[in-house]
This record gives sequence, C-alpha cells and structure tokens, in this order.
Amino acid sequence: MLDICLLGCGGMMPLPYRYLTSMMARYNGNNILIDCGEGTQIALREKGWSPNPIGIICFTHFHADHISGLPGMLLTMGNAERKEPLLLIGPKGLEKTVKALLTIAPELPFSIEYRELNEKQECLEFGDLLIHAFRVQHNIVCYGYSIEIKRKGRFDAQAAKEQNIPLKCWNKLQHGETVSMDGMVYTPDMVMGADRRGLKVTYTTDTRPTQSIVENAKGSDLFICEGMYGEAEMITKAKSHKHMTFLEAAELAAQADGVKELWLTHYSPSLPKPEPYMKEVRKIFENAYPGKDGKTVTLLFDED
Amino acid sequence: MLDICLLGCGGMMPLPYRYLTSMMARYNGNNILIDCGEGTQIALREKGWSPNPIGIICFTHFHADHISGLPGMLLTMGNAERKEPLLLIGPKGLEKTVKALLTIAPELPFSIEYRELNEKQECLEFGDLLIHAFRVQHNIVCYGYSIEIKRKGRFDAQAAKEQNIPLKCWNKLQHGETVSMDGMVYTPDMVMGADRRGLKVTYTTDTRPTQSIVENAKGSDLFICEGMYGEAEMITKAKSHKHMTFLEAAELAAQADGVKELWLTHYSPSLPKPEPYMKEVRKIFENAYPGKDGKTVTLLFDED
Repeated sequence: MLDICLLGCGGMMPLPYRYLTSMMARYNGNNILIDCGEGTQIALREKGWSPNPIGIICFTHFHADHISGLPGMLLTMGNAERKEPLLLIGPKGLEKTVKALLTIAPELPFSIEYRELNEKQECLEFGDLLIHAFRVQHNIVCYGYSIEIKRKGRFDAQAAKEQNIPLKCWNKLQHGETVSMDGMVYTPDMVMGADRRGLKVTYTTDTRPTQSIVENAKGSDLFICEGMYGEAEMITKAKSHKHMTFLEAAELAAQADGVKELWLTHYSPSLPKPEPYMKEVRKIFENAYPGKDGKTVTLLFDED
Repeated sequence: MLDICLLGCGGMMPLPYRYLTSMMARYNGNNILIDCGEGTQIALREKGWSPNPIGIICFTHFHADHISGLPGMLLTMGNAERKEPLLLIGPKGLEKTVKALLTIAPELPFSIEYRELNEKQECLEFGDLLIHAFRVQHNIVCYGYSIEIKRKGRFDAQAAKEQNIPLKCWNKLQHGETVSMDGMVYTPDMVMGADRRGLKVTYTTDTRPTQSIVENAKGSDLFICEGMYGEAEMITKAKSHKHMTFLEAAELAAQADGVKELWLTHYSPSLPKPEPYMKEVRKIFENAYPGKDGKTVTLLFDED
C-alpha cells in the first residue's frame, strides 16, 4: 500500500488557493517528499500529515519554488525534537545549496545526509523501495523521480515440502537468503515464485518532454506530470521557458506503455482553472485528471 | 493616511489558519514590510495588496520564521519585472544572510541595497517618513521598529501677507526651503505653524520586555507587540525562550505614554485562540486587541 498526496499544484509562486507543487509518498514508514517550496509545510499540515516521519526529501532542481520551504520544514522537524537523520537527494550542488539555506536554520537536533546525483539516470535502493532519478530538460539541471515498490513472488510451501527443505530454513528463504544445512544448500528460487507486479509512481516537473520521461514513466500506476499551460497555443512560451503544455504531458503518458493514470500539476499562476482543457487532454490519454492541492490516492498491490 | 496590515500573527511555524507574523505599512507609495517569513507573499496576496510597491523590508532578526519567505518574495517581484531597487534593513549580518538565501534566487532584475544596524538605536529618514530601529532582547540580536510620519505645521497665509513675502516664494517656504529675493531672506519659520501631530506605529516581536520598547512605543497610534503566550503561568518559559506573555505586552503598552491601541501578535503554535486571555489583558491596558491575519487599520492625521 502506497499513499500519494499531491500537496500543491502551483508553479512559480504560491497562491492563496494553490500551494507550490510537491508530492509526498507514504510507504511502510518510509515517507518521501519530492520538492519543498515555500508553504509546503503548511500544505502538509492542512493535509493532516506529519513532517516527522519524512526520511527522504528529493529535489527536482534548485529554483526557489522547489526548495524555499526547506529551512522552515527543517526547523519544524527540529522543534518536534527529531533525532533521526534526514536524507536529501538532488542534483549536483545540493549540499552547497542546502548549507547556504541553513544560514537561517543553523542548529538542528538531527543530522542531514546528502546524496548528489551526477548521472543521467540513477537508482537508489532502500529495501524494497527504489527511487529512480532521471535527468529531464529544464533551463538548469533538473531530475524527475520514480518511486517503485518491488514485490517478491509468493512462497510455495508445496514446493518446499516436495524438495524436503527443513521447516526452519523457510523464513530465511522467504527473505531472500541462501541457507546451508546438513550439507545441503537451499536457494530462494527453489521456493519463491516469480516477482509480482509492485507499485510505481513517477513525478516530473519543470521540463520539456523527453525520452527519459517516457522510459521512466513506463508501467506507472500514477504519473504526475508538469502541465504549466492549458492552452495548446502556449507551446512557444512552453518551449522557451522549458515547460510543457497539458497536451504534451498527455502525449508522454500515451507514449509510456502501461501508465494507468495521469495527474497534471505545476500550473502557471496565470491559469486559474485547469478543467476546461481536460477534454482535449483526454483525447490523447483518457485516464487524465487535473491535479489539485491535497489530491490523494492509496495505491494497492494487485490481488493474486 | 497610513495603512497598516498585520499579514500574519503566528510565531515559529506557519499554520493553515495562521501565517507567520509580518506587517505591511502603506504610506504615499512608500510601502514598508517588516519581516518576511515563509508564506508572507501568500498572506499579502490574500490581503489583495501587491508586493511591487514595497520599497523597504525591515527585518527584526534572522530566525527563519522572520526571513525564510524572502527568496520567494524577491522572485515574485522579479517575475513582475520590477526594476526599482529594494532597500533591506536589519541587524548586522544582513547582507551575508540575504546573499546566502539568494543562492536560490540568483538572477533578479533589480538591485538590493543593504542597511545594517549597528547601534542600539538608529533613525533612518525618508522624507517625512522616519524608521526608528531599536535593539530589543532576544536570544540573538533583534530589533523593534517604529514607523513615524512627521507632519509639518500649517502655512499661515495671513502672516505671509503681513510680512509682505512675495507670492512666488510661498511654495518653497511651504516645502521648508529658505528663499532669498530682492535682497531679502525669507525663512520657513516666518510662515509655518508649529509641527502638528503625525502618525506612529511601533512593532516588536521576539523579545523580553525592555525599556527601549517603552521609550520607542511612546505616542504610538498603534503598538503591535509580541504576545507568544496567553497564560500568565507561561512566564518561566517566556523568560527562558526570550518571549513575552500577553500580560507583559499589556504592561509595556501601559508604561509607554500615549499608546492609543495595542495589538498582540506572534502567538505560539500551541495557542489556538487568544480571545480567552484578553479580559485580563484589558485590566492592564484597556484598548488591547488580539491580532488576526489580515487585521488592518487606516490611521488618519488629526483634523485641525
């Protein structure tokens, strides 16, 4: 089970009715925040979710509307007497940028770890949770992220019995360990079925359409994508500012095989309502929805 | 005429129903903001006032809840293609602190000027508008501010006629200039009455009660004062964290001669409603009100 909340859906500046774009994922106590612009901690509080279980914050890039809420968020975590370290992930320059912001949040009761991204595509593993970071195309270095939950196959007790595998080996085999006992070696593949379909969410803002987005969005249960402009005519501005129109986002969702649902986000402050443009969007990708502040979904593993 | 808006009234962290404490003054196009924590630009927009006419931002101190909204505010000004320079006023270290924050707002289309405060008491003049900065007592260097509008005396046309002052000198004399004409020297005091009562607003947060507050708040039409805790029993915590209770703020208002009205602000996140404590506050200073987000007043010169 993976909870996803789009905390805000605004680009450039926060508005009274629209916080800046950021997303929070909750999975098994491994809470992950993507981007933390001004007001993100208010949006989180409005949602009723606590900042304290956040273990990782991923940054797409370092424009202020994606990171300016960090000092306040860290102080709020500190005021709650957090002791656990916090991992920050982002493009090269992350540590320098964050340390500059820490000028106004100098004494935190927890440590911060930095993981700077240097490659076009990187995968970070946290047990069965993977974070795939992939370079996109903005006017500064910018990354999109996929959060993927892997799901092992079923344990086949019948096969274990048939192969006379001792009962006390079963648990270790289920957890992927190879076990040697009484001169025999037992490996997980002897008792585990093929990996089952897990869960995947892909998030990308501040970019032109790229092949890296198509590749990484493949198979996503939910694809949250930049849609700065509703009007198709804004394509020239979108190109020059390195953003996307709704229709371009829909094209990406259509090209990436297996995307189940698309949410648009990162609207221009000049776009008050996204709904009027959705009819055209759905001609390209049917299961598309305009993001809204606080829009939440709980993704469930397939039953099998 | 001086418009004052308390944009938010929260201390420490912004909440969904309470922005961080900051104040905006509007006078003759000289708009002044005091403090700019996370969300201040949203509060300003909610009020319906534009950030573009802000010429001066004063900072009480550099804890994040008083300055973390600056990068976003500057970017919003930049997006509106502001060209006019912006003056920032604050304690020593202002330029270094702001330049650190500019890491995430690197390319602004206007210049920033810095005026660092070094003395316990400083006065900055901008025509008939004065900003008095005075040191208060927090756990880092912190200042309070009084904004004062000076008001000249009336021009006495009868006196000008009686002294045979040529008509074409009158305007310059009204504007405080000495005029020499036809071998005569005319000085403003020949035709101008005594200075009239102007307007004064005093704002202070994040401090214990100090004599500097009493001195500077004297004669204020409006005194906006730190009131972190409603309960009188919180005095020990107030002392250790260098804040104030409501009752202490009321004592200051009572001690400062001529304060017309007191607004409390900078509430602890643990204080949901200030109203239940106001009865006791008013026993000390009658004309006291709890600050609220967006609370606004238009102060008018005395009629005479």
